[in-house]
Amino acid sequence: MNYCSHCGASVSFEVPSGDDRPRYLCHHCGTVHYQNPRIVAGTIPVHEGKVLLCRRAIEPRHGYWTLPAGYMENGETTEQAAWRETWEEAQADVKVGHLYTLIDLPHINQVYMIFRAEAGPEFAAGPESLEVALFDEQDIPWDHLAFPTIVRTLEHFFEDRPTGKFPLHTSTMDKRDRKGMF
Amino acid sequence: MNYCSHCGASVSFEVPSGDDRPRYLCHHCGTVHYQNPRIVAGTIPVHEGKVLLCRRAIEPRHGYWTLPAGYMENGETTEQAAWRETWEEAQADVKVGHLYTLIDLPHINQVYMIFRAEAGPEFAAGPESLEVALFDEQDIPWDHLAFPTIVRTLEHFFEDRPTGKFPLHTSTMDKRDRKGMF
Repeated sequence: MNYCSHCGASVSFEVPSGDDRPRYLCHHCGTVHYQNPRIVAGTIPVHEGKVLLCRRAIEPRHGYWTLPAGYMENGETTEQAAWRETWEEAQADVKVGHLYTLIDLPHINQVYMIFRAEAGPEFAAGPESLEVALFDEQDIPWDHLAFPTIVRTLEHFFEDRPTGKFPLHTSTMDKRDRKGMF
Repeated sequence: MNYCSHCGASVSFEVPSGDDRPRYLCHHCGTVHYQNPRIVAGTIPVHEGKVLLCRRAIEPRHGYWTLPAGYMENGETTEQAAWRETWEEAQADVKVGHLYTLIDLPHINQVYMIFRAEAGPEFAAGPESLEVALFDEQDIPWDHLAFPTIVRTLEHFFEDRPTGKFPLHTSTMDKRDRKGMF
């Protein structure tokens, strides 16, 4: 951030009076430009016991497999965001269920929220996907998954499935969790 | 938003090519300025069966009672944000427990995340609070609570407490839920 989005003057990066951390602030009009983490909402869509994965047509991690997920937009709920991302990436009109994984990624200012979802037999690659496919547990492309959040969510799912219970799993990741991936 | 925070040129508000909703975009340097919902993290601190509430020293809702909560900051986890807000507003070093209410507020682009928390006997009004106090259920100032999210979280808590189980409650609010409050 170089300029104030309100008045166009140059901003400085310093601790505002009465605050405890540096912010972008404009000495011309007085605006403090707060920056906050973003929510990445998505689903783990399941159809007849198989999990729907999307192969990414965009960077980062072009060509790797992921669960459908993306940035929550203003004006929607977390559940609506999860549904929309599933629709956009996998063209699947899922029935969104309970929140399943909540993963904090403080090093990149993201909070992942993945919901369980029931998918039907109809799906297709959206513009951000190269292909979309259903996977049995033994066919999950573990070595070609896009992000550690996706690995962790799928691990929880296959651990929980024999028990028939799918409690919310909350956890934190840092950049070390990327190790061996990218 | 009037100016591009990257290059200082004027921005326009229009649907970017390949997108499906209007954004602030800069035709000079090509930056798209995405805006996303913010997380409000907080706790419901309990000490010896009583709930710790803070009376707000700031607008909005100056003078009304609230649970300690505020915007999550970059670089922290949701749980750390909940702890920090409790420390800042109630000077209480709580032990943060499980996520308890997750409330979407799409009309104001917020997602509330309130965690259960154990408080000790030590607390005090932080700079954003006029006073901080422990309340028995029968003494909760229902008519002087600051926000509908706080009302709902406390209602869940007192409904759940006799059962000894405190599952995650997810819900959505819109501006009609403010009715009779402000």
